[in-house]
Amino acid sequence: MDEIRTLWWDRPSGDLRYIDQTLLPGEYRIRPCADPENLVLAIKTLAIRGAPALGVAGAYGVALVAKACRALGHDEALSRIIAGAAGVASARPTAVNLSWGVGQVLSQLEMVAGGDGADLYLAAISAADKVASADLQTCKDLGGCGATLLPGHCTVLTHCNAGALACSGWGTALGVVRSAVTAGKQVQVIACETRPLLQGARLTAWELARDHIPVTVIPDSAAAYLMARGEIDAVIVGADRITSDAVFNKIGTYSHAVNARHHGIPFYVAAPASTFDWQLSACSVVVEERRRDEVTGFFGRETVPASVPVRNYAFDQTPLDLVTAIITEHGVFSLPGDAEKMRAATGGRS
Amino acid sequence: MDEIRTLWWDRPSGDLRYIDQTLLPGEYRIRPCADPENLVLAIKTLAIRGAPALGVAGAYGVALVAKACRALGHDEALSRIIAGAAGVASARPTAVNLSWGVGQVLSQLEMVAGGDGADLYLAAISAADKVASADLQTCKDLGGCGATLLPGHCTVLTHCNAGALACSGWGTALGVVRSAVTAGKQVQVIACETRPLLQGARLTAWELARDHIPVTVIPDSAAAYLMARGEIDAVIVGADRITSDAVFNKIGTYSHAVNARHHGIPFYVAAPASTFDWQLSACSVVVEERRRDEVTGFFGRETVPASVPVRNYAFDQTPLDLVTAIITEHGVFSLPGDAEKMRAATGGRS
Repeated sequence: MDEIRTLWWDRPSGDLRYIDQTLLPGEYRIRPCADPENLVLAIKTLAIRGAPALGVAGAYGVALVAKACRALGHDEALSRIIAGAAGVASARPTAVNLSWGVGQVLSQLEMVAGGDGADLYLAAISAADKVASADLQTCKDLGGCGATLLPGHCTVLTHCNAGALACSGWGTALGVVRSAVTAGKQVQVIACETRPLLQGARLTAWELARDHIPVTVIPDSAAAYLMARGEIDAVIVGADRITSDAVFNKIGTYSHAVNARHHGIPFYVAAPASTFDWQLSACSVVVEERRRDEVTGFFGRETVPASVPVRNYAFDQTPLDLVTAIITEHGVFSLPGDAEKMRAATGGRS
Repeated sequence: MDEIRTLWWDRPSGDLRYIDQTLLPGEYRIRPCADPENLVLAIKTLAIRGAPALGVAGAYGVALVAKACRALGHDEALSRIIAGAAGVASARPTAVNLSWGVGQVLSQLEMVAGGDGADLYLAAISAADKVASADLQTCKDLGGCGATLLPGHCTVLTHCNAGALACSGWGTALGVVRSAVTAGKQVQVIACETRPLLQGARLTAWELARDHIPVTVIPDSAAAYLMARGEIDAVIVGADRITSDAVFNKIGTYSHAVNARHHGIPFYVAAPASTFDWQLSACSVVVEERRRDEVTGFFGRETVPASVPVRNYAFDQTPLDLVTAIITEHGVFSLPGDAEKMRAATGGRS
């Protein structure tokens, strides 16, 4: 079966194309995206989501900005591209990958000395394509590293969707599962549904079922009970940002980490080096709070009295001391032992 | 404001009346229930739910069975009542209160020596009314005991609905909150929405807002993060059954207990003595598994691919060693210190 591709540049039309993840699992629809405003909307509504995919989206976002500057001279085009790219980079605040992807392409454009706006546009597409294909290769490298951690028969609990749909393809946490299955291991996945937006129920279940990897959906709150019953061999999640002291990932991740520690179950984070943000400690990361109606509304029906407030954090933070190991494309780093090695390998220097 | 009454016997019609909890918070509707089949359906669909309320429903269920036996002689009526009551008692398997309530009324009827079916019917109503009013008094006694545990200003996290709607009125976990507020304490409640059926979002939020007690709804998975942020002073939950070694309560309770322990937050269980089942240890309790569509369907829309299985446990079990204290109508029992005293006070002997 073909591998899932989440977003790509369509050269004939000069548009970005993406799977609209708000419609899954009911409908599989590819949408075109012709300008950066449309891309920002797709990111804000989570039609495109997942930290590595946001990196790729940020990269192609610069190309979409550059498309409108094709008729300009070099200097004016470049300054407009830099200004427009800032709007793409700030579409969501917590995942570091979005601004990382924007920065990857901008740094390439800044090295284009001659030519005009049209040349910058072509250079942006080319640089973004490289970010996308590097992301796919990174996931496969990461998956291969992580697969060695899993026994021949096992059940992995995961949260949200850190799969092909969260990346160019293959996935991070689910990339580890895919690589293990490809290597002949028998892996089944327990997918936490992941309230409020049900990325586990909708997306993880969809993409694993599509690839014939056994998956079962549970309410998030049932994870601890399955751990106590001895049904979970490992927890593997993705990450939106890893600071010097904590992993930021979908709300609910932290609870799984505490419960995994309580039950003596390994808790793995699978994330490319681009997720690391060694400049920051956890206290300076902005945790996005999202709209009330994500929690209170189900397809137009209100389930919370209108007068009652809601707290809707999109992410939580898990201290590194609850993490057994971080799986990257540069290898598996067990914590705390490999902390310095990990820092050196992921751009934090040592 | 009038106190909430969840279910009661309507003498003019000879029917049980109840608040249909499947319709809240959108609609407040009182439904009549004229026969035991209708009651069993109301219990299975969770129109009537909550362990203490199930005890009261079981008691009135015997009266509904007896209503159809009014024209019979004493012995035939009694044997038909006993047979019919068994069907009511088995409508749901995990909460011990349902069969406890049935047993309370049956034991009264077995002491009625003379008369006929009509006399047994009147005796059943009278005995069930006593169960209902005793439940309300029990909640108020329990609430008063528990209120002493809370500081003058505090935030309590709760799960599911252990409130007035789960009892004749007042509530167990929320009874503690109501009693503390009545005593002049400033208590705000964080209500976990409680997937899959959202009793926290729908019922706890509704009944606290109605009584002007501050309440905020969160996804279940956000509880640990709020604990880590220092925003939770205590966790108080109800219970469906307490065995010699564990508390059975709504799925998700156990995760909160593990997280409360990790964060050094007291974890209280509020439950009447009728919830204790000293005959059993946790391993012999049947944990109800409910229908797939409770997890996968939202008002008719499917959010999980049809080929993907679901695990839908209604309850989980929390070992007593994660419980700080159990709050009953006979006082607060700190664990493990007061374990023997609690056993003696709640019918387990010592």
